[in-house]
Amino acid sequence: MDALEQKQEEVNAAGAQVRALKAQNADADAIAAAIAELKRLKVDLEKDLNALKEAGNAEAKAKEEFRAKLGQLLEGRLFYIPSFKIYGGVAGLYDYGPPGCAVKSNVQQFWRQHFVLEESMLEVECPAVTPEPVLRASGHVEKFTDLMVNDVVTKDCFRADHLLEEVVEELLRDPMLKADRRRELEDLQACIDELNVEQMSAALKDTNTKAPVTGNDLSEPYPFNLMFPTQIGPSGAVKGFLRPETAQGIFVNFRDLLYYNGGKLPFAAAQIGQSFRNEIAPRAGLLRVREFTQAEIEHFVHPEHKEHPRFAEVADTVLSLFSQDAQLGEVKKPFPMTVGEAVSKGIIANETLGYFIARCHLFLVQIGIDTNRLRFRQHLKHEMAHYAADCWDAEIQCSYGWIECVGLADRSAFDLKAHSDKSKVDLVAYERFDKPIEETVVEITPNKKVLGKAFKKDAKPVTDALLALSEADAFALQDACAANGSAPLQTENGEQQIAADMFTVEKVTKTVNGRNYTPSVIEPSFGIGRIMYCMFEHAFYIRPDDEQKTVLRLTPVVAPIKTTIFPLVNDDKLNAIAAEMNKMLTTNGISAKLDATAISVGKRYARTDELGVPFAVTVDHRSVTENTVTVRERDSCGQVRVPIPEVPGLLGRLCKMTVDWETATAGFEKQATAADE
Amino acid sequence: MDALEQKQEEVNAAGAQVRALKAQNADADAIAAAIAELKRLKVDLEKDLNALKEAGNAEAKAKEEFRAKLGQLLEGRLFYIPSFKIYGGVAGLYDYGPPGCAVKSNVQQFWRQHFVLEESMLEVECPAVTPEPVLRASGHVEKFTDLMVNDVVTKDCFRADHLLEEVVEELLRDPMLKADRRRELEDLQACIDELNVEQMSAALKDTNTKAPVTGNDLSEPYPFNLMFPTQIGPSGAVKGFLRPETAQGIFVNFRDLLYYNGGKLPFAAAQIGQSFRNEIAPRAGLLRVREFTQAEIEHFVHPEHKEHPRFAEVADTVLSLFSQDAQLGEVKKPFPMTVGEAVSKGIIANETLGYFIARCHLFLVQIGIDTNRLRFRQHLKHEMAHYAADCWDAEIQCSYGWIECVGLADRSAFDLKAHSDKSKVDLVAYERFDKPIEETVVEITPNKKVLGKAFKKDAKPVTDALLALSEADAFALQDACAANGSAPLQTENGEQQIAADMFTVEKVTKTVNGRNYTPSVIEPSFGIGRIMYCMFEHAFYIRPDDEQKTVLRLTPVVAPIKTTIFPLVNDDKLNAIAAEMNKMLTTNGISAKLDATAISVGKRYARTDELGVPFAVTVDHRSVTENTVTVRERDSCGQVRVPIPEVPGLLGRLCKMTVDWETATAGFEKQATAADE
Repeated sequence: MDALEQKQEEVNAAGAQVRALKAQNADADAIAAAIAELKRLKVDLEKDLNALKEAGNAEAKAKEEFRAKLGQLLEGRLFYIPSFKIYGGVAGLYDYGPPGCAVKSNVQQFWRQHFVLEESMLEVECPAVTPEPVLRASGHVEKFTDLMVNDVVTKDCFRADHLLEEVVEELLRDPMLKADRRRELEDLQACIDELNVEQMSAALKDTNTKAPVTGNDLSEPYPFNLMFPTQIGPSGAVKGFLRPETAQGIFVNFRDLLYYNGGKLPFAAAQIGQSFRNEIAPRAGLLRVREFTQAEIEHFVHPEHKEHPRFAEVADTVLSLFSQDAQLGEVKKPFPMTVGEAVSKGIIANETLGYFIARCHLFLVQIGIDTNRLRFRQHLKHEMAHYAADCWDAEIQCSYGWIECVGLADRSAFDLKAHSDKSKVDLVAYERFDKPIEETVVEITPNKKVLGKAFKKDAKPVTDALLALSEADAFALQDACAANGSAPLQTENGEQQIAADMFTVEKVTKTVNGRNYTPSVIEPSFGIGRIMYCMFEHAFYIRPDDEQKTVLRLTPVVAPIKTTIFPLVNDDKLNAIAAEMNKMLTTNGISAKLDATAISVGKRYARTDELGVPFAVTVDHRSVTENTVTVRERDSCGQVRVPIPEVPGLLGRLCKMTVDWETATAGFEKQATAADE
Repeated sequence: MDALEQKQEEVNAAGAQVRALKAQNADADAIAAAIAELKRLKVDLEKDLNALKEAGNAEAKAKEEFRAKLGQLLEGRLFYIPSFKIYGGVAGLYDYGPPGCAVKSNVQQFWRQHFVLEESMLEVECPAVTPEPVLRASGHVEKFTDLMVNDVVTKDCFRADHLLEEVVEELLRDPMLKADRRRELEDLQACIDELNVEQMSAALKDTNTKAPVTGNDLSEPYPFNLMFPTQIGPSGAVKGFLRPETAQGIFVNFRDLLYYNGGKLPFAAAQIGQSFRNEIAPRAGLLRVREFTQAEIEHFVHPEHKEHPRFAEVADTVLSLFSQDAQLGEVKKPFPMTVGEAVSKGIIANETLGYFIARCHLFLVQIGIDTNRLRFRQHLKHEMAHYAADCWDAEIQCSYGWIECVGLADRSAFDLKAHSDKSKVDLVAYERFDKPIEETVVEITPNKKVLGKAFKKDAKPVTDALLALSEADAFALQDACAANGSAPLQTENGEQQIAADMFTVEKVTKTVNGRNYTPSVIEPSFGIGRIMYCMFEHAFYIRPDDEQKTVLRLTPVVAPIKTTIFPLVNDDKLNAIAAEMNKMLTTNGISAKLDATAISVGKRYARTDELGVPFAVTVDHRSVTENTVTVRERDSCGQVRVPIPEVPGLLGRLCKMTVDWETATAGFEKQATAADE
């Protein structure tokens, strides 16, 4: 029980005391004293509650200010902006402007390098427009829904869970709430995402949830499919959807991909592309949008051999794990553990899943996600689909809370089996046994000649019925025929009388060299936009000396360009050197941008800081006389003077992140920070 | 008149002669002789017609065989495959498999390098889901249609122009066709793409076009919109479409992009992304699909200053130009001309358009398009939109004919004006005059005090009417008031009597420093899939010595990987060197793939040839003793022995295409072609 709850109990006890004294007709002084005590306790509780509320308000206000400042930078510098702005925009649709586009391209390129190329994955590109049967097989047509409610008067649409969440939060903010009701609401709050229609309906009534703004009654909740519907072709007969994920394109191509891979397992296929979700009420900027870039991997593996050949390379990676036990335990906090230990202890289900969790961790850290605000949360039993063997989300903390940015799931054979069932095409791999095995099977052999003679055109149903008999039934029929000369058999065309000479049943031993099986799939699925937004939050800061100086601490891997080049003043000689420098860096694969605008270097530094450019090269008068330039690092604002021919090498090393600034520049002349900075 | 037409005329003449002789009751021998001559001429004509038909059939068959072989390679090696194949596929939707995905990524990356980075364009990424008003403003909701007809019995849908085209072709194949009817049909054939509803209806009737297969009557033609429709949000109230082109995303962001560019013109924005067209009857593989990648540039420029600062760099580029005059002239053939001459002669409208045509030519040639099968065709006057200043298509010849792969248009101010009109947001740039100019304007100044007193609450409409007067009307009113003391004025609330003291009119001279104007836009628009398909056709050949050996002559720029690495036999030492080689090349940015499968090197070469890999490194026993490997070039099959440390340098030079194979390998030991090749 926390301090507040205790005080609440004391107030309740004091109230009871006053009532008891009054009921007993006690001494007036005693009653007065009890009332005074009750008042004192109430005032004290009130003070605590106000302080709590203010602290909450202050925190909320700080977050809002932070987001406003970051948003000002990101939208102002066109990292991203609401789409179709001149037409009033559309919720949940965003454009990436030039620097955002460059950062996104870098994130995707690094993802391709880190996963696809490093592991020789098979990359594919499939269309977004998808015919209905594919998404019916995958379960999306039936189950990819959110619960919706309408304002019964205005008909406005709302997500039921959003409304319920807000009301429950509001109710929980009431300090006078009874303890058992509080527990009830807290339990509800924990599972709002997973309520079915009936549970949601009950919860909305229980909490007396009304439409926001109008306060009108709400309709019963009902499922709304989140896929954008469309029609393929002119007749309107072929129903389609925009894909809600890129994964299905890989599953339906499994057979061709397996063939391309020489029939060998394991292998992984990958796809980067747009996915679409027609969210009911998009909010939270890039975190919940209607069109977004996904990068998905489907790693196909033998269901009984989920070891990974490169697991040893990542086994020592320390992860922040928020396992099922940790979530259900007393402390409810993630713990650090190497992935090797987590797999060996069975916390993570298998090596391949563990391998991808570790590789995902390494990817996120290298693009600039703060490890202290990154955790891997295991899905609880009731969150997981029945077929899933294990499932973890990479969650990144930002001002909106802990955000699911990557899903890593062992989906067993579900997807391939689902598509195989619906398409009637086998999606299996073949395994050759180490040694051929002997298998005893029961063989039923209909005697076609006798059957044909006896049943004429009805011979086929009889034959089919014979072949469909179970082992036990076949022998029973044989025994009955042996005993009675003939016996009845149920066929498609009714019961028929079967004679002993119409078939034989025998046990046969066969040599089997291998078998077909449906592979398991391990699926790491990345939401590029969400990761980018969290990355921007982690990269954003304000220089302590100046409220106006905002900076994006983007790593060289993702920065939109690696360096800017400034001629100190507008001078032909300086401009020529700067242009030469620009060409030299670009040729060496270091993306650079020349900024020769006639404003102070300090202002140009500020501009480059906002774009997250890690380095700046300034050409000054000593460049002309000494053939040197200064190189500045964004975060430390450290500056060194470097001979021009050495600049590409220095920046190349720094951009590869193999060496830090202090070490890399140890041999160069340190420069004082420019006066105008 | 061609030889065939002449023979046809001779037959006609001989027929007339026979009829004439008969009418004259001429001598029987003379008639017999005339009949014999007619027969001879007919037989001769028949022979020619059959030869022509056979030649046509042979050509068609050769094309089909070529396409079948190429298709076998491209689909067999998963360059691309029909999407959702296990569900029977959907016409016009294709997946790129691993090598296709790599080639596509290389084409796009090179496009980005050649255009976006080289010219510091502003790259953006906008959503595919687009609200209706945007596409209404652009004209797509009303005009982005194809004419459709239905089989009146089965209701099957067809593209009217496709059916008409087939029927016209069939009719023209009839050798006995009258000359004037032939000319009529040829004229129709030339403009089938551009018929409006009424013209199409007439043409279908005139040619007696019926539904294919069934032979049923057709409905009247009607326009079918080619955009995929969808709905945004849960209420169904917000209508949307999948974008039919990426360009609109740039236009609607013009204001922000101009601001980002410091308010300066000219500048270009670019976007690579998916576009969607719900084709009525997709055919011709990757050439006409329902979802495809576009790469578009919008270069914004002052309408009176379409010079380009870098034009001199491309002025000497020789293009194959199929200008309006060439198309309408006698010869109907493109001609070679430098872009410099074409612009100076006014054949290409301006330098900026010429610059992009030349850059487009260079791009296509570098990715492997055969210059002899590339031409730039100017749109004829009636093909061009009324607003377009000039328009050229890069057309590439393949087995389907000349295919429009890139459109290059000077669209003047149309797009920005259209969006400005509909969105009510100014999409303009500001130009500062070199010298401020003096402008004389007429100023009407209502006397508010007097008006207020006279008209009370009606003063506003009167004031508005005064301010809305033209210069001439204002002076006329002033004169009338001066003459008569007052004069009538038409206002929103009817006629009012205006007195002389209620307003003044005078000419004022003002200094104007600049003005707002709507920029022109020059739009190069690339269809990546079409270009790739033509590139594959140009790259495909069969080795003369073996029907089975098919090769893709892909340039190193676009090849899916640059080199394969083969250990000659499966041996630990060789495998180790091969692995080391692989790492060495990859580190040097040369994408490589190790192929250690236990099949002959010849077979492995054949496999790598089909994937279009330009080089192959073979590790053999001399690699162990001498530290050398052999390097093989795909098309010449030439092989040289190279010291291992020199391999990355050699391949690097070859992949940059700065030096040819013969020159690059001059210093190395030539190897005989392997026996098993």
